[in-house]
Amino acid sequence: MADEKTLDDLFLDTLKDIYYAEKQIVKTLPKMAKAATSPALKAGFEQHLEETEGHVERLEQIFELLGKPARGKTCNAILGIIEEGKSIMDEFKGTVALDAGLVSAAQAVEHYEIARYGTLKTWALQLGMKEAAGLLDATLKEEEATDKKLSQLAIGEVNRKAA
Amino acid sequence: MADEKTLDDLFLDTLKDIYYAEKQIVKTLPKMAKAATSPALKAGFEQHLEETEGHVERLEQIFELLGKPARGKTCNAILGIIEEGKSIMDEFKGTVALDAGLVSAAQAVEHYEIARYGTLKTWALQLGMKEAAGLLDATLKEEEATDKKLSQLAIGEVNRKAA
Repeated sequence: MADEKTLDDLFLDTLKDIYYAEKQIVKTLPKMAKAATSPALKAGFEQHLEETEGHVERLEQIFELLGKPARGKTCNAILGIIEEGKSIMDEFKGTVALDAGLVSAAQAVEHYEIARYGTLKTWALQLGMKEAAGLLDATLKEEEATDKKLSQLAIGEVNRKAA
Repeated sequence: MADEKTLDDLFLDTLKDIYYAEKQIVKTLPKMAKAATSPALKAGFEQHLEETEGHVERLEQIFELLGKPARGKTCNAILGIIEEGKSIMDEFKGTVALDAGLVSAAQAVEHYEIARYGTLKTWALQLGMKEAAGLLDATLKEEEATDKKLSQLAIGEVNRKAA
């Protein structure tokens, strides 16, 4: 079966999924930064927007390494996660709990990315794609660092104000 | 503003979200166990189904502590994540890469839960709900352990067979 699908196909599929997801996140972060009332949280979202633009570029480098066009594939997971974040933003707008809701939504996004980048990095190593694995690992580390920063902001400031 | 929403409302909202999500996961895990070709992966999904039923019960205990009926709220995030898992199952059915796709889908589910339980536990502590925080932490630790086991299975067996 020369045309049986293998890990290469799964890798490309998932690369398209996270490429689509990152582009959605680039669109969403400015709205979250605008909505945040804590200056530290606002600055955190703005900084992560810059990082996210870098993640898109790294994915484009991997498409290039594969000799494939950089193309996204609708990712229902990220659409659902972002939709939930939006409804929290609407429901808690103008309340003391808004920032806590924003942090929660952002951490759901981060964890989706941590799952996908962790998987893609492991697959890249299995497929002998060392350069791609390095790019994926660099982004994975930034997503993990962002998740930790959000936890610190929640515990240090945001949750207390929300209670 | 006596009726302004606070962290208590956000906590209850998010509790309903993860309660709905866990019930969806209870429905989905048997399908993943059935689809898996690796006996170790199949056993892992079956074991996690039992754990997940325990997570539903813990959430019901927390609703009881709050004096609220245990009620879910449609969680578009988990619906999107599960939908993606299903399309991978369809697309890679009968191929060597199916199990790798199943692990990837399961880890996206785990990370959604890790995000939500981490948030809920921190909020419970902020709200002085120690018993609830303990229950949430117990589930969080099981989700993290499941995620690690899936990574080990992927690296030790599943990815090699898929390549």
